[in-house]
Amino acid sequence: MEGHIVLAHELDITDIVRTFVGATGGDDNVAYLRPETAQGIFLNYKNVLDTMRVKVPFGIAQIGKAFRNEVTPRNYIFRSREFEQMEIEWFCPPDQAQEWYDFWCEARQNWWKKLGLTEANLQMRCHDADELAHYAKGGCGTFDVEYRFPFTAPGFGELEGVAHRSNFDLTQHQQASKTKLEYFDQERSERYIPHVIEHSAGLSRGVLAILCEAFTPDPDRPSKVYMKFDPRLAPIKAAIFPLVAKDGMPEIARKLYDELRTRYAVQLDIKQAIGKRYARMDEAGTPYCFTIDSDTLTDQTVTVRERDTLSQERINIDQVAGYLAERIGI
Amino acid sequence: MEGHIVLAHELDITDIVRTFVGATGGDDNVAYLRPETAQGIFLNYKNVLDTMRVKVPFGIAQIGKAFRNEVTPRNYIFRSREFEQMEIEWFCPPDQAQEWYDFWCEARQNWWKKLGLTEANLQMRCHDADELAHYAKGGCGTFDVEYRFPFTAPGFGELEGVAHRSNFDLTQHQQASKTKLEYFDQERSERYIPHVIEHSAGLSRGVLAILCEAFTPDPDRPSKVYMKFDPRLAPIKAAIFPLVAKDGMPEIARKLYDELRTRYAVQLDIKQAIGKRYARMDEAGTPYCFTIDSDTLTDQTVTVRERDTLSQERINIDQVAGYLAERIGI
Repeated sequence: MEGHIVLAHELDITDIVRTFVGATGGDDNVAYLRPETAQGIFLNYKNVLDTMRVKVPFGIAQIGKAFRNEVTPRNYIFRSREFEQMEIEWFCPPDQAQEWYDFWCEARQNWWKKLGLTEANLQMRCHDADELAHYAKGGCGTFDVEYRFPFTAPGFGELEGVAHRSNFDLTQHQQASKTKLEYFDQERSERYIPHVIEHSAGLSRGVLAILCEAFTPDPDRPSKVYMKFDPRLAPIKAAIFPLVAKDGMPEIARKLYDELRTRYAVQLDIKQAIGKRYARMDEAGTPYCFTIDSDTLTDQTVTVRERDTLSQERINIDQVAGYLAERIGI
Repeated sequence: MEGHIVLAHELDITDIVRTFVGATGGDDNVAYLRPETAQGIFLNYKNVLDTMRVKVPFGIAQIGKAFRNEVTPRNYIFRSREFEQMEIEWFCPPDQAQEWYDFWCEARQNWWKKLGLTEANLQMRCHDADELAHYAKGGCGTFDVEYRFPFTAPGFGELEGVAHRSNFDLTQHQQASKTKLEYFDQERSERYIPHVIEHSAGLSRGVLAILCEAFTPDPDRPSKVYMKFDPRLAPIKAAIFPLVAKDGMPEIARKLYDELRTRYAVQLDIKQAIGKRYARMDEAGTPYCFTIDSDTLTDQTVTVRERDTLSQERINIDQVAGYLAERIGI
């Protein structure tokens, strides 16, 4: 499928970025940059089990750089040789694997939707039996979350794979390391190697999907386009404007800015026509603009202008922090 | 000096991690992993200048992975082939370089102190003229923040270098790219290539210094040792304990835990003797423990136990979130 690569499947050795370490840097010092974060998590499994007082089922999540020697890097950060991955390995009793696989397929779809990706641009796809990686054969399956990027449309590109890896990895690590990786389940009085449900997502790709989704043309606005980010993901949460740069308005604006900036990424913008300042914030996807005007001087209210609806309402200046906290939830 | 390497100086090509990219992977496809984040910032300079409405002086900060082919990686994360750096390039008018260099030397020392590193374990060291890197010759100098690690004591190891790089990098990039990198200073009606004060810090090393500093033996405590983290850096901000696992105490504890966990990394620990639970939190460096006991049931107060002083006081359960916010400042 156009734009589709497998994130969590077996890789050809030539896909892995080779390097040399140590004093001589010869062929006997060859090393490889990790092509996925997953195996680091499996190495951490026993440490986490021994120190973190966890009980199965539990998960270990990690984000980090991964490297693949892509022959044709392209489509911005969709396919690059160095990228950011985020993975969760979820360890569960073997007989609960199906239940957790179903749970995570549902939960991961909902997570992407909650960040603003729309149903129309998302596709959930179960792998066919002949697509399954070696570690997933015989398991509950593999499930991809795919997004319709502008450059893959009408096709889709992979964002994340959810796979039942059975106990493949821990069994391999146990054999190679000669270290017991079994878990003793006190409630069941039973010893087993946990099964794993893995979610392997491209973080760089996720960012690109969110940028694509947010890009919203609107010929009626001065900016002609705005970025419709979920407020939690907007790089600028709010802007504070004095309507004019006089009559004490800039001072009130600065005071509000100083109050908010310890907690939120906010901008203070003093100069130019108010329409131009709104337009700039639309382009950056800032969800809320607070304007200090002559009424503020007498009744301590400010105008809140909401990015998507363009609606304006007045609230008390003391309520601004609470207004943001309620909407951004941070 | 024992344990001392230069973070921001010229590197020998053999120190740089070599790899191969593309389809054939031959010697004509050789590539190098970045040995520092600095040059990425200089590449971003013009983009930032053109899009972010900044005026000189301004800074660009970045954290990220860097790679060096160390022959003898050692001392935990003090010297490793893959490490995390954090750098700020501060762009200023050439005639203000001395003033900003002095400002940043002071500011960077204070920053490390504010995170909990004590005066006794810190050393500020100006480079001698013959130590200066090629880009720093003729500038205001180079200044290191050094820490006395247990494995360098009585010597020190470098945490951060502050250097006046003059306009060396931007001039080099301008020549190679044939792109003007000058800045037009409206207030002065003057065109110049900004000078740069760089702070290049080892983030991995900083974490190690903070762990070393926090490690505090105390034979009078059941744990014998505790981690004296600044509350802002503690991995667990607070723990919530029901004194006993009955009489509705676990339910009240869970309610408080659910209220706090959306904002802070907190732990709920229900079982075992209270002393054992305190000891575990001392080992993890948790600054505050809140205990729900039989008095809570009648007067809605809880005990706060403070890690460093071991003092205990009672506060209203409704004040717990505010108590934490005030001390952690997040």
